[in-house]
Amino acid sequence: MQGDILAMKSFGSDNHSGIHPAILGAIAAVNTAHAVAYGDDPATQRAVGLLKEMFGEMADVYFVFNGTGANVLALKTLTRSYEAAVCAATAHIWTDECGAPERQVGCKLLPVAAPDGKLTPELVLPRLQGFGFPHHSQPRVISISQPTELGTLYTVDEIRALADLAHKYGMYLHVDGARFGNAVAALDVSPREMIVDTGVDALSFGGTKNGLMLGEAVLFLDPMLSGNAMYERKQAMQLASKMRFVSAQFEAYLTDGLWLKLATHSNALARRLAEGVSQIEGVELTQPTQVNGVFALLPREAIERLLRDYSVYVWDETRDEVRWMTSFDTTAAEVDEFLAAIHQALG
Amino acid sequence: MQGDILAMKSFGSDNHSGIHPAILGAIAAVNTAHAVAYGDDPATQRAVGLLKEMFGEMADVYFVFNGTGANVLALKTLTRSYEAAVCAATAHIWTDECGAPERQVGCKLLPVAAPDGKLTPELVLPRLQGFGFPHHSQPRVISISQPTELGTLYTVDEIRALADLAHKYGMYLHVDGARFGNAVAALDVSPREMIVDTGVDALSFGGTKNGLMLGEAVLFLDPMLSGNAMYERKQAMQLASKMRFVSAQFEAYLTDGLWLKLATHSNALARRLAEGVSQIEGVELTQPTQVNGVFALLPREAIERLLRDYSVYVWDETRDEVRWMTSFDTTAAEVDEFLAAIHQALG
Amino acid sequence: MQGDILAMKSFGSDNHSGIHPAILGAIAAVNTAHAVAYGDDPATQRAVGLLKEMFGEMADVYFVFNGTGANVLALKTLTRSYEAAVCAATAHIWTDECGAPERQVGCKLLPVAAPDGKLTPELVLPRLQGFGFPHHSQPRVISISQPTELGTLYTVDEIRALADLAHKYGMYLHVDGARFGNAVAALDVSPREMIVDTGVDALSFGGTKNGLMLGEAVLFLDPMLSGNAMYERKQAMQLASKMRFVSAQFEAYLTDGLWLKLATHSNALARRLAEGVSQIEGVELTQPTQVNGVFALLPREAIERLLRDYSVYVWDETRDEVRWMTSFDTTAAEVDEFLAAIHQALG
Amino acid sequence: MQGDILAMKSFGSDNHSGIHPAILGAIAAVNTAHAVAYGDDPATQRAVGLLKEMFGEMADVYFVFNGTGANVLALKTLTRSYEAAVCAATAHIWTDECGAPERQVGCKLLPVAAPDGKLTPELVLPRLQGFGFPHHSQPRVISISQPTELGTLYTVDEIRALADLAHKYGMYLHVDGARFGNAVAALDVSPREMIVDTGVDALSFGGTKNGLMLGEAVLFLDPMLSGNAMYERKQAMQLASKMRFVSAQFEAYLTDGLWLKLATHSNALARRLAEGVSQIEGVELTQPTQVNGVFALLPREAIERLLRDYSVYVWDETRDEVRWMTSFDTTAAEVDEFLAAIHQALG
Repeated sequence: MQGDILAMKSFGSDNHSGIHPAILGAIAAVNTAHAVAYGDDPATQRAVGLLKEMFGEMADVYFVFNGTGANVLALKTLTRSYEAAVCAATAHIWTDECGAPERQVGCKLLPVAAPDGKLTPELVLPRLQGFGFPHHSQPRVISISQPTELGTLYTVDEIRALADLAHKYGMYLHVDGARFGNAVAALDVSPREMIVDTGVDALSFGGTKNGLMLGEAVLFLDPMLSGNAMYERKQAMQLASKMRFVSAQFEAYLTDGLWLKLATHSNALARRLAEGVSQIEGVELTQPTQVNGVFALLPREAIERLLRDYSVYVWDETRDEVRWMTSFDTTAAEVDEFLAAIHQALG
Repeated sequence: MQGDILAMKSFGSDNHSGIHPAILGAIAAVNTAHAVAYGDDPATQRAVGLLKEMFGEMADVYFVFNGTGANVLALKTLTRSYEAAVCAATAHIWTDECGAPERQVGCKLLPVAAPDGKLTPELVLPRLQGFGFPHHSQPRVISISQPTELGTLYTVDEIRALADLAHKYGMYLHVDGARFGNAVAALDVSPREMIVDTGVDALSFGGTKNGLMLGEAVLFLDPMLSGNAMYERKQAMQLASKMRFVSAQFEAYLTDGLWLKLATHSNALARRLAEGVSQIEGVELTQPTQVNGVFALLPREAIERLLRDYSVYVWDETRDEVRWMTSFDTTAAEVDEFLAAIHQALG
Repeated sequence: MQGDILAMKSFGSDNHSGIHPAILGAIAAVNTAHAVAYGDDPATQRAVGLLKEMFGEMADVYFVFNGTGANVLALKTLTRSYEAAVCAATAHIWTDECGAPERQVGCKLLPVAAPDGKLTPELVLPRLQGFGFPHHSQPRVISISQPTELGTLYTVDEIRALADLAHKYGMYLHVDGARFGNAVAALDVSPREMIVDTGVDALSFGGTKNGLMLGEAVLFLDPMLSGNAMYERKQAMQLASKMRFVSAQFEAYLTDGLWLKLATHSNALARRLAEGVSQIEGVELTQPTQVNGVFALLPREAIERLLRDYSVYVWDETRDEVRWMTSFDTTAAEVDEFLAAIHQALG
Repeated sequence: MQGDILAMKSFGSDNHSGIHPAILGAIAAVNTAHAVAYGDDPATQRAVGLLKEMFGEMADVYFVFNGTGANVLALKTLTRSYEAAVCAATAHIWTDECGAPERQVGCKLLPVAAPDGKLTPELVLPRLQGFGFPHHSQPRVISISQPTELGTLYTVDEIRALADLAHKYGMYLHVDGARFGNAVAALDVSPREMIVDTGVDALSFGGTKNGLMLGEAVLFLDPMLSGNAMYERKQAMQLASKMRFVSAQFEAYLTDGLWLKLATHSNALARRLAEGVSQIEGVELTQPTQVNGVFALLPREAIERLLRDYSVYVWDETRDEVRWMTSFDTTAAEVDEFLAAIHQALG
């Protein structure tokens, strides 16, 4: 299926989806005149305003192009090169950014094995050592993904515990929220309760995987932390000249709760998929389906049969584990059709 | 005028303009289904194909988000950190990228004073020394802008002379073509004659300033030079997940010569502006108007009066030099209105 | 004991020792006239010659200041920033260089848990994935320490197996030989058998921990690999101007097998210490004593008592594991005295 | 003459000289026992104490291996990567460190043409622009060399003027004092008057070129500026394990004014050389001889004749300008012999 506009919806990744019509419409809507470049335009002001409504007036907002850019900007702003960020070994910053954090920030990442993708104070604590010892990269950030790359979620209390741990050691808590909407949709809490009230210091707030053409936001919850971010963004090559077209997407995304509706939808479809899959013999779910990702083991032959018609992401080749993602535009019928295909592939 | 969708067309920068309708239409046109991410999609294949038609089958093409990203990807791919790139002191890579080349590539830039923004073999040669001497950053790239940041142009022969010089020293010639269309429109030569036949090694091929929402392409004219570019792009945070929406813009841009038509238009309007300005007493043109930029000296009070109604980019504060840019959508009436405003500001 | 010239020999680290008299004499011996700087002097030529005698004419030799500099120069020369080096989680490059490899090289390190500090093909293989996938730092180097930071040794066959694995994947094998002499002294093989015949690509050859004032050598076993090393060394700030005083130390070190005699001595004393310790109730050896380091568990109170008179390096605070190192100048009487002190501390 | 212990004293560079006997003696003197590594030893405490006596108790001192390491540590500690340092185009950091500042610090250097190697507020001011503009590397440091690489000197008032300028813009003044002793010896002022009272923020205090085997010190005059320096030093691979042997050299160097005596001597010999040269027809001095370097134009044939017997550093090949340096151990007889050789070469 590589190399084609896919004939059917893909469960390979939520970034196989396109642009939500309202978001594409917003791009067109601000395409009516000239505007000052680099973010000094009203669309950007409005989008920043909407994020401040969600996260408080203290939030300092920087739009960037993509998720790697967002995470790197957050880490680069919060650390110096002799410092380190503790993360799960499954974290996007550790596994999927081609070493950009190390190269761009210069800092060390300290990966921690976490079977469900979640850090805990118990897992992090052994890495918080060597403070004041110049041979040792100084831990400065704990970085978690909410939801995790394994589709699991931190509770508000779990986030607060990690923020407390970070602050106790003079460190910061960063949240990679590439799929932040899916986390908020799944837990019955507001963004403010999840991020501000828990003490998170910086958030990568994703848009691309949930209906944007492209665009992520980095939020620093305390402007004392982000004095250098506007320079770091430019130097990190993440400053769009025609910024209004990124900002307008966020404006539409954040208006009338579109972001939450889309995430609620993809979460629900993933649950439908997981429930269907749990009825199929020969497939074993490996993670709870808390957001829009379904992780499962199935026989290699079945994977190969499925690959004839679908783009399938093999998450872990060593144990034939696949990851299926639903998107904002996946339909129930498509899930059911896919379930039938899985069933057939196993037959 | 800062912070507003501008009430009238801006002459402040060509990136104050928006998206050409055909390009916005192309984004919408590929928004019909799912597609594999990161460039393995048919829109990307088509856009790459169009660039190969222009620059030859040997051209290796990488789409990126913005101009700084394009230049950094080119330099990062061609050099190692102990090497250096010679550029004009007015080059975008030297003045306007917040140190991204130094930080991202690690290399040294060697700026050369050039009153018209153009390097010549005579200007470059004194920098080509210290080869084999480990205390000295080893010159590896000559980087020129075509057109220059001062709106001037290299002839084909001038480019060839710099390419020959580079190759004689085992170096590469990089062209920052952020406004490449304007250069081709102004000179009566094809892209192939300007770039391939002269021996250019890498080209930053701009789109954003000439009608795209965002998007630039880096071309390596010899695939032997770009083996590492796909990793460098990812690590430089310039790999779009929903790549088709960048590629589709290029497809429209490169179809039926749209890119050249738009550039021809903005060049013509700049000439109209320059000619008008040359009739106004108290304004002095400082560079020939070869593409879409007009550089002029005018009294500080006049600049300030003009700023009441227009976004004006003061190019050199020390001598009250302004830069006026026309865009793909500037109209003759708008130029005339602007000329009247200049006239009035001087009155 | 911090902050004092120690009243007695230290078992805290082999870098608590001083300069061997023959090596200090060699510094004085070349201090008779002027010499060209930066390595273009006869002492450097002689020292390089001695290393070529040991490792073959193909060996390309670079003297540097310290061990971190040596490892970084090796990695920086062999990789590009989007590549990765696999190492043991106990490796000096992972734990004790304050992130210098990440910052200096830009590359990612992939740490592998290894209880005895030794990598094996089985441990490394799972990390050799994602080739050609631009999201993944491309594995390019396997880096091992010989002896390891836990005082254990690779056999020649084990090194060869790792070199074969590396080469099968188009990768390189780097050996951190900060205590290389101790490894050669312990195994009945020549440097050439251990390094050249096994297929090692680059070696950090240590001197400081075995009698030098300061100085390490980086050897590339194939000059095709090290074309850029002389620039990388300078840019890594590891090029001594008065190089002859580093080189002369190596000349003395490598003459008449001094390096091996010193290492043989410290190894023997460590064995004496380990054997003595094994007779003391309440102490448990945690690693075989193959070179000059003894690793042991002992009660926290005993550690604290010992600290009153000795510098003791607590290797792992979480389980009260200490590391005792012998040096080139440790005497049997000092070991026996230390054994008595341990006995007493436990009493 | 390359590749030989030179048969006679060299005027090629002051780093062609060796180790002053008192300094070599100091190395031997601390080689009597074990000492804690990495600077926690009494020799280091004493050497730091001597520097604090010279520069005040507020001075924070870091010993490093070489001059490039010293300059990079100073810049790395004072800046972030999106910032810039203004320096003379003849500065060692711009011309002779193989891009280490750019690579290690990530920052941009802004070179300013200065015929006598000296910055002035007038020369620096035009570079102090773009503050708050994220496209522009933010100027943070002014870096001067005292004496300059052209052997010229700043007066105390000139240093103060640059410090005042720096502080007015929220910037720092760094002094590269690779030959600091020669500057103090030449001007009738104390180190404190030259550095502390003028408001210098950081000083690279050289030793290697004036009698040390190797070793430089970085001083931050305000400890608020250097909180991160101990980590930056380690990450910059400039932390010696057997530190006492670097520190002991400084102790001897700073005791009984040895450093000043040696510098006074080499300055005087350079004056003798300059005076002699000024009597020789066909040689033209190009800079005033204020410290231990003599710059002169002489015909290419004469340079070539001189090269048969002497190591000669051709400073500027384009105009046949040579640099002759005297050292702490140069004798008057050697200067006279060299003058005779110059005379003969011209004959």
